[in-house]
Amino acid sequence: MPNPLDLARDAATLTADLCDRPSVSLQEGELADAIEDALRPLAHLDVVRLGNTIVARTNLDRPERVVLAGHIDTVPLTVDPPNLPTVREPSGQGEILRGRGTVDMKGGVAVMLRLAYAVPAPTRDLTFVFYEAEEIDSIYNGLGLIERERPELITDADFAVLLEPTDGAIEGGCKGTLRAEITTKGIAAHSARPWKGHNAIHDAAPILTRLADYRAEVKEVDGLEYPEALNAVLISGGTATNVIPDRCVVTVNYRYAPSVSEDEAAAHVRSVFDGFEIDIVDNAGGARPGLNRPAAQAFIAALGVPVTAKQGWTDVARFSAMGVPAVNFGPGDPNLAHMDDERCPVAQYGACEEAMIRWLR
Amino acid sequence: MPNPLDLARDAATLTADLCDRPSVSLQEGELADAIEDALRPLAHLDVVRLGNTIVARTNLDRPERVVLAGHIDTVPLTVDPPNLPTVREPSGQGEILRGRGTVDMKGGVAVMLRLAYAVPAPTRDLTFVFYEAEEIDSIYNGLGLIERERPELITDADFAVLLEPTDGAIEGGCKGTLRAEITTKGIAAHSARPWKGHNAIHDAAPILTRLADYRAEVKEVDGLEYPEALNAVLISGGTATNVIPDRCVVTVNYRYAPSVSEDEAAAHVRSVFDGFEIDIVDNAGGARPGLNRPAAQAFIAALGVPVTAKQGWTDVARFSAMGVPAVNFGPGDPNLAHMDDERCPVAQYGACEEAMIRWLR
Repeated sequence: MPNPLDLARDAATLTADLCDRPSVSLQEGELADAIEDALRPLAHLDVVRLGNTIVARTNLDRPERVVLAGHIDTVPLTVDPPNLPTVREPSGQGEILRGRGTVDMKGGVAVMLRLAYAVPAPTRDLTFVFYEAEEIDSIYNGLGLIERERPELITDADFAVLLEPTDGAIEGGCKGTLRAEITTKGIAAHSARPWKGHNAIHDAAPILTRLADYRAEVKEVDGLEYPEALNAVLISGGTATNVIPDRCVVTVNYRYAPSVSEDEAAAHVRSVFDGFEIDIVDNAGGARPGLNRPAAQAFIAALGVPVTAKQGWTDVARFSAMGVPAVNFGPGDPNLAHMDDERCPVAQYGACEEAMIRWLR
Repeated sequence: MPNPLDLARDAATLTADLCDRPSVSLQEGELADAIEDALRPLAHLDVVRLGNTIVARTNLDRPERVVLAGHIDTVPLTVDPPNLPTVREPSGQGEILRGRGTVDMKGGVAVMLRLAYAVPAPTRDLTFVFYEAEEIDSIYNGLGLIERERPELITDADFAVLLEPTDGAIEGGCKGTLRAEITTKGIAAHSARPWKGHNAIHDAAPILTRLADYRAEVKEVDGLEYPEALNAVLISGGTATNVIPDRCVVTVNYRYAPSVSEDEAAAHVRSVFDGFEIDIVDNAGGARPGLNRPAAQAFIAALGVPVTAKQGWTDVARFSAMGVPAVNFGPGDPNLAHMDDERCPVAQYGACEEAMIRWLR
């Protein structure tokens, strides 16, 4: 067994070790092996492996069960300059750890491994989920794999914490996200004789004007504020510089409050772009924060950290869909996720672990 | 010498033969060889070769010299269905020849070869120019090659006829063409938190609105009408569906009357898009028709075909810049140039040849 994971080390050192075992999506095998090998010897855990997704459960007959979940894959590495191996270095905000995965989300995975190792008798029964392929097309997602093959491993929980980066705050729920393509169609012609055709790019003018004029709402859900957003994210039209374009496609992204259903979101986008050809290509509803539940209230009280609304879509929506309310809480600034110089203050890893221990011991 | 060109055949048969010798831009070598080999034996012609461009001149001490010019390259072939070899078939408008080059412009080249062969004692001295690489970046253009290395081969002419397709009419002069990129710049951010960025695609709304609202002028020059045009031809913005776009580029094409200078055209586009970042990436002035010149008047009188304004930019502007007024006259509908099913009524090739003979015999 080459280079086993030593879970006795502090969370920051463990994070660096996890990052230095590259595990870009669909290449998580070696890291999954190391996690499985580190957990199997722990007598208080039952370990199940599905693909490269590892589930470890305590069975202490506690009155409540909570899921702690984190994905073990990262987005691709950079080559020049390389963003692995990690570098630990001083900075204006104290010592930092720099490298791929330091934010999204090897630090959260390290905290989960530390808790599995150091808290053998938690106050709640725990289900640890280390899952594969979160950063790519959802058909590969390890949570989806569990949902299809062993849903009972998750659905018996009362609450879930997803250890995605939240910069040390609790981020409740998540917004939904809808992607639509709005297409204008014209008639191609030589650009010296445009009267023989019809310009599809010119026809997109009112689409962009409606977007520029759009004023998004801020919606309050379970006491948290979710600012919505409607944006063009891509535009593409035309085939050559001497041809009147016969097609223009504006791709818009609508981020909507968790109080809005997927159908309501689609209807809203259709009404904003009334009169245009609209194709909804992706639509994933959000998750209400569920902060009124006793399990969530206890979590918030124990941790004593700020509580805000999650802006981006995360797998908390997947837990929500399985009937398990979920929050996000983990080390790292989410604005630095996927950046080439991803980095996190070293102190955040230990602080996150300590906050979780306040709740579980 | 494999498969020589037989110039004794009728213009349509010769056109089919020329088309069936593929000569996509920068691959004109074999066709240039065949043309050179066919012209060298003709005692009344002096033949000069520069690269894959062939110039053949009579020297009969006529009071007037005219250039007959045509490019020997085509745009790329299609594969499925293939548009070569040519097919001769019946149609509603009489027999047609279908295939790459039948319009742009192997028919004009065939007529030139027929005249070189069948009219050894023309009423004007003739300079035939069979040139390479008209369909691609102008640095490769065979006329430009002559202009740089042997300009005297052209500048001693009083008039030029470019045998580009005009559907059998005389098309005088050509419009100028300007291409500009108008860029908006924003700030990238996650599309769930757009307030941390600035949307460059939304900023392009007034660019498209100004284009949609633009009313182009029709300008009269030397008795011909040139309708101007200003169009978006390409638009591109955004990098991913979850990122607020930090850049959007609208490429516009301004087609302007030959009475407008290149500088005036650039100033006009800058004024239409006042307030935006504009990069003029290409600007080629048009050519006045020059129909008031005696040589042009004689040509029009001899041919007895309709006279109209050329809408697209052609190499007549290159002749104009060298001090030689020029018109377009050739077989084929210019609207079918570059189309996959390029095709021309067989009768047009012979009719074009006969019209030219009315002028030259």
